[in-house]
Amino acid sequence: MEKKVSASVINRLPRYYRYLTDLLSSGIERISSKELSERMHVTASQIRQDLNCFGGFGQQGYGYNVKSLQSEIAKILGLDRGYTAVLVGAGNMGRTFAINTKFESRGFRLIGIFDTDPKKIGTTLTRYTIMDYKNIKEFIDTHHPEMAILAVPKQVIHGVAEELIGYGIRAFLNFSYTELSTAEDVAVENVHLSDSLMRLSYKLLEHDQNEDKKQESEV
Amino acid sequence: MEKKVSASVINRLPRYYRYLTDLLSSGIERISSKELSERMHVTASQIRQDLNCFGGFGQQGYGYNVKSLQSEIAKILGLDRGYTAVLVGAGNMGRTFAINTKFESRGFRLIGIFDTDPKKIGTTLTRYTIMDYKNIKEFIDTHHPEMAILAVPKQVIHGVAEELIGYGIRAFLNFSYTELSTAEDVAVENVHLSDSLMRLSYKLLEHDQNEDKKQESEV
Repeated sequence: MEKKVSASVINRLPRYYRYLTDLLSSGIERISSKELSERMHVTASQIRQDLNCFGGFGQQGYGYNVKSLQSEIAKILGLDRGYTAVLVGAGNMGRTFAINTKFESRGFRLIGIFDTDPKKIGTTLTRYTIMDYKNIKEFIDTHHPEMAILAVPKQVIHGVAEELIGYGIRAFLNFSYTELSTAEDVAVENVHLSDSLMRLSYKLLEHDQNEDKKQESEV
Repeated sequence: MEKKVSASVINRLPRYYRYLTDLLSSGIERISSKELSERMHVTASQIRQDLNCFGGFGQQGYGYNVKSLQSEIAKILGLDRGYTAVLVGAGNMGRTFAINTKFESRGFRLIGIFDTDPKKIGTTLTRYTIMDYKNIKEFIDTHHPEMAILAVPKQVIHGVAEELIGYGIRAFLNFSYTELSTAEDVAVENVHLSDSLMRLSYKLLEHDQNEDKKQESEV
C-alpha cells in the first residue's frame, strides 16, 4: 500500500469491512455499488468515491467482487496481520466487549483476560479463564501480544498503560472514559461512548429543524 | 445556525466539547489555538479550520473565549435542548454506560432505566431504580423522553425500536452490536465497538510501517 488513504475514508472502512463480511457469509460474491448503497444507507457515489481510490474494483456492469474488496480492506486496516490482544479489566465494559466482539472474524486473536479483583480471577468469561493482573508481565514475555484493550477505571489508566508499554505493548484500545496519551510510537484509540450521545443529539436536532421548516412552509 | 457544517467537523465537535468543558471546570477562560492543539494532540491549523467556520471566535492575540466557544458548540450539537433519554437494558453495556456517562454535563437528562429481567427490576443502578420494561409505554406517555439508549440483545433490537417509535421515541443510541435502520424521520446512532479495534489496527500498522522504513534507511 503506497497510496495514502484519507483519514475520513479510513474511519469508514471498518463499516464496509463488516458489511462485506456479512455478505460473504450469506454467500454473496458480487455486488453493485447501488445494492451496497441501499444496504448501507449511504449514497452510491460515496461508496464509489471511498472504494475506488484503492484499486479498480468496481467494474461497469459487474460491480464489486466482495471477496477481493474485503481482503483489500483487511490489508489496509492490518487485519491480515493476525494481531493478538489482551484484555485488561473484566468489569461491565470488559465483559460486554469480550462477549460481543467477533475477534476472529475481524482478524484478531484475544489471547488473555486479566483483572486485579480476587473475586474475578479464576472465573471464566466466554472461553477464557480470567488471570491475575500481577502475572501479566510473564504472560506478555511468553506470548508477545501487540495490543491491550484497557477497560480499567480512569484513575489507573495512565499507570497501567505505562507499565504495559514497559512490557512491550505497542497499541491500546482505551475504554476508560478518559483520554490516554502516550509516547508517539505507541498507537492509541480512545473510545468515548458519550461522544456518540452528542452525535445522536445533533441528528435529532437536524430532524427537528427539518420538521419545523416543513411546518412553516405548510402555513 | 444557517451555515451547514461538514459531517467530519460534526464528528469532531463532541471531542472539542469535552475538552472545553474540562477547561472551564479548571477555571480556564481563554485559550490559544496553539495551547488547545497541544492538549488535544491535533494541529493548530486543524483547530482553526474546524472552529473558525462557525463564528469569529479565534481573535489574533486573544485566542478563544472558552465559554462562548463551548456554548456555540453546544447549540450546534443540540446540547442546549435538554433532551431527555431512557436507557433500555441494564446488562453489562447498559450498566457501564449509565455509571460512567456524565449526562448532565453533556446536556442530557437520563430519566429512567428499564429491563425485562425480574432479578434486575427494583434494584438500583447509580441513582435510578430499574423499572419493568412492560411499563415503559406509561412512562413515555407521562414523561415524553425524546431518546432511547438501547443496550439490548441484537436479536430483539428491531422489535424494541419499532415498539418505542410507536410510543413516540424519535432517536436511538444503539449499543446492540448490530445495525439498526428505521424510518427516515427517526435519528439513529449505531455504535460499533469492534470498529474501534479495526481503527487501532490501522494505527498500529502505520507505526510498524514507519518503523520498517526507518530501519531500511538505516541499513
